[in-house]
Amino acid sequence: MAVAQLSIDLTAVAHNWRTLAAKSQGETAAVVKADAYGLGVAPVGRALAAAGVRSFFVAAAEEGVALRSAIDDAARIFVFSGHMDGDKNTIAAAGLIPLVNSADQLLRQLEALPGHPFGVQLDTGMNRLGMEPEEWASLRDIALGQSPQLIMSHLACADEPDHPMNAQQLNAFRTMTDGISAPRSLAATGGVLLGADYHFDLTRPGVGLYGGAPYMDARPVVELDIPIIQTRLVRAGETVGYGNSWTAKRDSLIATIAAGYADGLHRVMGPKTQLYADGVSCPVVGRISMDMIAVDVTDLTAVPDQLQILNADQGVDDLAANAGTIGYEILTSLGQRYGRSYVGGQA
Amino acid sequence: MAVAQLSIDLTAVAHNWRTLAAKSQGETAAVVKADAYGLGVAPVGRALAAAGVRSFFVAAAEEGVALRSAIDDAARIFVFSGHMDGDKNTIAAAGLIPLVNSADQLLRQLEALPGHPFGVQLDTGMNRLGMEPEEWASLRDIALGQSPQLIMSHLACADEPDHPMNAQQLNAFRTMTDGISAPRSLAATGGVLLGADYHFDLTRPGVGLYGGAPYMDARPVVELDIPIIQTRLVRAGETVGYGNSWTAKRDSLIATIAAGYADGLHRVMGPKTQLYADGVSCPVVGRISMDMIAVDVTDLTAVPDQLQILNADQGVDDLAANAGTIGYEILTSLGQRYGRSYVGGQA
Repeated sequence: MAVAQLSIDLTAVAHNWRTLAAKSQGETAAVVKADAYGLGVAPVGRALAAAGVRSFFVAAAEEGVALRSAIDDAARIFVFSGHMDGDKNTIAAAGLIPLVNSADQLLRQLEALPGHPFGVQLDTGMNRLGMEPEEWASLRDIALGQSPQLIMSHLACADEPDHPMNAQQLNAFRTMTDGISAPRSLAATGGVLLGADYHFDLTRPGVGLYGGAPYMDARPVVELDIPIIQTRLVRAGETVGYGNSWTAKRDSLIATIAAGYADGLHRVMGPKTQLYADGVSCPVVGRISMDMIAVDVTDLTAVPDQLQILNADQGVDDLAANAGTIGYEILTSLGQRYGRSYVGGQA
Repeated sequence: MAVAQLSIDLTAVAHNWRTLAAKSQGETAAVVKADAYGLGVAPVGRALAAAGVRSFFVAAAEEGVALRSAIDDAARIFVFSGHMDGDKNTIAAAGLIPLVNSADQLLRQLEALPGHPFGVQLDTGMNRLGMEPEEWASLRDIALGQSPQLIMSHLACADEPDHPMNAQQLNAFRTMTDGISAPRSLAATGGVLLGADYHFDLTRPGVGLYGGAPYMDARPVVELDIPIIQTRLVRAGETVGYGNSWTAKRDSLIATIAAGYADGLHRVMGPKTQLYADGVSCPVVGRISMDMIAVDVTDLTAVPDQLQILNADQGVDDLAANAGTIGYEILTSLGQRYGRSYVGGQA
């Protein structure tokens, strides 16, 4: 067996949701877009539903179909990209709730699916998704007359609690929605941590469920073990890997392990990344290949059958720092070639 | 419909294989590891088999199983990671040919599957996979006595034709294998382009089949169209996206499109990457999100329903340069959320 094994702790996902729910006012939903941040929307969705989640969020209607087949019909599935051209039958069949983002989408929704539940996404300054203030002003009576399930917006800088954009978006959201009777939502994980002013009727944590910053109290959710294909003695002065980019400074024992950038371990993370065995760190040497990584295991007293790249010592945010990105991207990059096992939950 | 559409040109894959085969001495195989570099091992494998490929290479036995179910039993499937502990039944059932990399693997193969075809991988200086010269010297008579299908090695610097490592590895390979009767292989795509001295009995192009460097004459294989969710007017001085990282210098028309880093469009490529409509380039603005990218479409005379990020103007090597990586990684990162369609071939 030459494929790495990804262990996904559904008990930790449920725990992270419960602790974020305990910090939230009102209902606490769960964001499971991008295949539950790369961890599998069906097992993650089922585990979260069992933990008490009644409202889920996905990016596209196609993702909603995959989620619906895993959970009960009563749970709500909101779709961030709203009602796109061609989505009518999918939305109806899977019982999805599009978050309409524009006049075009509102019109499409009301014409194609009159009486079908929908929500509205407002832009409060991020300029990415949602109705602009003027657009909303002209359409709000029509939209509110149809009893939308949710009026929501999204924060651009919630991961930076002191950023002035947070208060600015909060004010914009209040200006656009104060006094309406429809339920409101502004906060994802970062917004939950900004405090009750940001919570409104429903919060929507995503990355915090999966063990990533900015929720620093989250339990880690993933562990990744990579089998060793072989080890070899590399003499001082010899090179390892593509482009001869690493030269041994001492006689070294080098392990070749069976995962690479095709498994989502970004090529650029190589120089700063460690593998672990029994708490001992072993540096990556040379370039990460498509299917393999070379690791200096000289300092291990015994070479095990596999090495760990994601664990309590080196989490998704650490790998992200090594790759110049964010933990979210390390999660969503986790590869399709891994053997996957789920701990806890109802997977 | 809010998912991007990836078009994979199997006719171009077959064309690239034929033109690389025309440059090769001996048999020309095809490397289809990592799900055929992210493009789908079943349709790509079938198209290559129809074009005349009789020998395939995958990274792990698990990948060989997926390929075998798509092609005929007579085609050979070599496994680079060799015979790993636990692979016996998989190798036997799918009729795979492990490339044994060490004394341990040779012993495992001969004990577990006596008489079953295998090959041998030698290390000629890359120090990644394969038997070391001393190991090979002590085992070659045993190995050659079992009539191996192939004796192979891999070049570390073939993408740099002038690198002295190429001749050094060629010499090492000849020293280790001259005079044996088993078929030999040293060249992947880069090695094919180094010339006939490197070809031996079988070449194994991979990335060149899929339109990536170093085979600059390859036909592009992938196109990627991303639907626009909505457009908005962003006033000069307003910001777009996470962290307010982009500020409009003029009143701008900004499109939000439905793909992001969860689809393998690395977050770091944002600042240098363009989207295309009718040959006009439109820059990414702000940070690439998980499921969305904002694009400045101000200079388009009309806004289409979708924008292109991979096409003849901007190929996998261009995106790789924007992301600080190589075209191989852009290919293997192509996301699972795309709608995929195949042009030509027998998909």
